[in-house]
Amino acid sequence: MLVVVTGIPGTGKTTVASKAVERLAEEGVTYSIVTYGTVMFEIAQEKKLVSNRDEMRKLSPKVQKEIQKKAAEMIRKMAEKGNIILDTHCSIKTPKGFFPGLPEKVLKKLEPDVIVIVESLAEEINLRRQGDKSRDRDDEGIEGIRLHQDMNRNFAAAYCVLCGACVRVIQNPQGRVEQAAGEMAGVLR
Amino acid sequence: MLVVVTGIPGTGKTTVASKAVERLAEEGVTYSIVTYGTVMFEIAQEKKLVSNRDEMRKLSPKVQKEIQKKAAEMIRKMAEKGNIILDTHCSIKTPKGFFPGLPEKVLKKLEPDVIVIVESLAEEINLRRQGDKSRDRDDEGIEGIRLHQDMNRNFAAAYCVLCGACVRVIQNPQGRVEQAAGEMAGVLR
Amino acid sequence: MLVVVTGIPGTGKTTVASKAVERLAEEGVTYSIVTYGTVMFEIAQEKKLVSNRDEMRKLSPKVQKEIQKKAAEMIRKMAEKGNIILDTHCSIKTPKGFFPGLPEKVLKKLEPDVIVIVESLAEEINLRRQGDKSRDRDDEGIEGIRLHQDMNRNFAAAYCVLCGACVRVIQNPQGRVEQAAGEMAGVLR
Repeated sequence: MLVVVTGIPGTGKTTVASKAVERLAEEGVTYSIVTYGTVMFEIAQEKKLVSNRDEMRKLSPKVQKEIQKKAAEMIRKMAEKGNIILDTHCSIKTPKGFFPGLPEKVLKKLEPDVIVIVESLAEEINLRRQGDKSRDRDDEGIEGIRLHQDMNRNFAAAYCVLCGACVRVIQNPQGRVEQAAGEMAGVLR
Repeated sequence: MLVVVTGIPGTGKTTVASKAVERLAEEGVTYSIVTYGTVMFEIAQEKKLVSNRDEMRKLSPKVQKEIQKKAAEMIRKMAEKGNIILDTHCSIKTPKGFFPGLPEKVLKKLEPDVIVIVESLAEEINLRRQGDKSRDRDDEGIEGIRLHQDMNRNFAAAYCVLCGACVRVIQNPQGRVEQAAGEMAGVLR
Repeated sequence: MLVVVTGIPGTGKTTVASKAVERLAEEGVTYSIVTYGTVMFEIAQEKKLVSNRDEMRKLSPKVQKEIQKKAAEMIRKMAEKGNIILDTHCSIKTPKGFFPGLPEKVLKKLEPDVIVIVESLAEEINLRRQGDKSRDRDDEGIEGIRLHQDMNRNFAAAYCVLCGACVRVIQNPQGRVEQAAGEMAGVLR
């Protein structure tokens, strides 16, 4: 299984995924969590294109797209050997707008089985982001968060039509992360 | 014309479609209503893969996808000979999430002219489902119904972009089925 | 840069785009505004298929689709020579439903960098349309406007997945067109 886990910053997707993986480990089902950005960085580093992660942003869009496709191929190969959770973004907020995290060319190399969207209420995401100033998170505001989550559902549906995957929306409301993790475990199981 | 009619259980899509077809028959315009699942069952039965409809679910995903594509080809051929309403699902709710009813490979064989989504208010769908316990319908709850209808609009837009069809959303509020059927007749006419 | 600017009638997309282009001109950045329908008309006129713009609608869907693709190729070529804003529709409301303004085959010839959606509140759009009876605008009603704007977001996301463009939603609330133009200028800059 190759399960793509998405969710905008502040939804708690990484926590939900980690907890779900822990539960499954107890049942003897193993999943590796792979972060798309990390795979891309490792490829760029090996090609001597960058020496640290900050330099990734400075690569030309053309080079970034090449690395993005290369990463998809690598992750697909990993998924042939074992269950993978791919931690990534449904869309990336850039100064020009929302850029699809999995454009067609990438998606068709990746061939995921399921795309999960972890969502929370816009108000809760906003509060969590304000409490987490350590990570330089974009201040989208409540309306911006709503828009971003709406667009991500739209992107995910298009992804699924193109690669024949399922899309699952998991709500992660404040104080109920165990329930969200349980739902995620059900998808992974 | 090949018109795909979708709508989640409880929207009354089949009633709306049947009434619209009756009206058009009075005008001398003929439509055959074809159910995607039935065409798939007939193909599987002919290939001796199943002997009854319940066995369809037990087929491997790979075999199901093959049959789904074969069915699309057959329905496309039917549509060359006469007007067809294809009764199917925009997405199917599975334990892993929403699975697209018309993934790209199927869609491009089917080449529909219009994709209709019949919708109702989530509260009304919920009530109709509760009153119809005979059909083992999934209890999605009101929030689940809203999500399902939202995702179906997203799926339908992606379908139309890929095959150049139109998408039409028809509301079927309680007690106004004749009006919904009239709207549907307008699409079919 | 090839930036597609969309927005349903009454959102003020053309005003927002024009004002943004003016601002950029002051900064020495040049954009030409090209209207998709005009390019299509010019192609049809040259081929002696029509003699005035009203005749465009009477062309068969097959011929229209050919002209639509031809126009995409021409606009792509223009964009190789200079910055273009392409003024068009995310979806066109037809009697059969919403027809995608940029179906896959057109989109892949066009290869836009950004797709902008200009939105306004449904109530404001409705008022603006009522005050503008000179232009024979479709009376969609507030619910219809909401549906149309929702579907356009869905279409735009599918477009971006297919061509790797960004999608940007710009709100144009009553009395704040300068702010919307500023946002648009930021996308174009």
